[in-house]
Amino acid sequence: IPKPFDANQPKTIRLYPLSNYTFGTKDAQPEEDPSVSSRLERLEKHYKEHGMRRTCEGILLCHEHKTPHILMLQIANAFFKLPGDYLLPEDDEIEGFKARLNERLAPVGTQFSGEGVNDEWQIGDTLAQWWRPNFETFMYPYIPPHITRPKECKKLYLIHLPRSKVLSVPKNMKLLAVPIFELFDNTARYGPQLSSIPHLLSKYRFEYV
Amino acid sequence: IPKPFDANQPKTIRLYPLSNYTFGTKDAQPEEDPSVSSRLERLEKHYKEHGMRRTCEGILLCHEHKTPHILMLQIANAFFKLPGDYLLPEDDEIEGFKARLNERLAPVGTQFSGEGVNDEWQIGDTLAQWWRPNFETFMYPYIPPHITRPKECKKLYLIHLPRSKVLSVPKNMKLLAVPIFELFDNTARYGPQLSSIPHLLSKYRFEYV
Ligand SMILES: [Zn+2]
Ligand SMILES: [Zn+2]
Ligand SMILES: [Zn+2]
Ligand SMILES: [Zn+2]
Repeated sequence: IPKPFDANQPKTIRLYPLSNYTFGTKDAQPEEDPSVSSRLERLEKHYKEHGMRRTCEGILLCHEHKTPHILMLQIANAFFKLPGDYLLPEDDEIEGFKARLNERLAPVGTQFSGEGVNDEWQIGDTLAQWWRPNFETFMYPYIPPHITRPKECKKLYLIHLPRSKVLSVPKNMKLLAVPIFELFDNTARYGPQLSSIPHLLSKYRFEYV
Repeated sequence: IPKPFDANQPKTIRLYPLSNYTFGTKDAQPEEDPSVSSRLERLEKHYKEHGMRRTCEGILLCHEHKTPHILMLQIANAFFKLPGDYLLPEDDEIEGFKARLNERLAPVGTQFSGEGVNDEWQIGDTLAQWWRPNFETFMYPYIPPHITRPKECKKLYLIHLPRSKVLSVPKNMKLLAVPIFELFDNTARYGPQLSSIPHLLSKYRFEYV
């Protein structure tokens, strides 16, 4: 009998099939900033008023063919991003994050009802932090040397999806289930943050139901 | 006052300066296999006799200038690897791993004495798993689709170094403290496993003493 190999590991994560989730649409949510420079200007204004910007994003997992898939938003058939956003300065971290997830993905009105529609988001482990040392586009998975006041910290959390759930996607976005092997070693297409998700998840074992 | 931003995060890790550690040398430890193909042949033999090979490696952290550094072995002025090795089939996981760390890095005889010489290794969280689906060199941070019997699983653990410790390095190797920013985005020099260490550590906050 082979010896066990599961010491010091986090709890096994249960994943449900993609087909358990229902996808609707809702009004478009245009980008707040027309350009990178105006986004960085707004960050600078935020920093002067409120200090470091706090951004929260969720890694929402399901499976197909017993392979983990990550739910990602694709905007204008171009770039990808995780559901989530920056917190308002006065927001509590977890409550503010849930509110941002609902703005992005919760169904509106009485379009849907039943199991999973009103379920709370279950926010799991922090998986990564990315730091923006300056009012520039570069972010790093550590605070670079001699940087004492980063301008933004983006945290990635594992989100435990319930058995079923209704998600409504803004009309200018698509929600795609991207398999983990598609992200691995694919910085060219997904950028440094999304392509590192397989590394962040590799400590877990998954149960596919 | 800025709002907190520390929900769902692991405990802060305390790092000591590199200068707290004492480095000695001991007899060379040549590679067990003269070539990649003989290494894979030995793996195949192991798999037939004992099932999946279990390999454990440690991420040993200290700091310089308040930047985390990872202690890595460099062999023959060429490739880098983390301290650790495969477990013997009959080994318990954690005890076997500690024995392999001691073989590699513990001082021998009465060369040293005092604080930290006989400290046990403190094995922390599992940070990553890499799977070898076939008797080939490729490993992945997930089990690829349709692979039911991986041939090897390599686990990376965080090792909590004590305030001070004596480490003895085999003569054919160097122990280098590599700063985290040197590994980031540097697959070309360090390979996919070592260059992903900054991602694995990014969820932690560090205390530099
Ligand atoms: Zn603001
Ligand atoms: Zn399939
Ligand atoms: Zn064997
Ligand atoms: Zn310095």
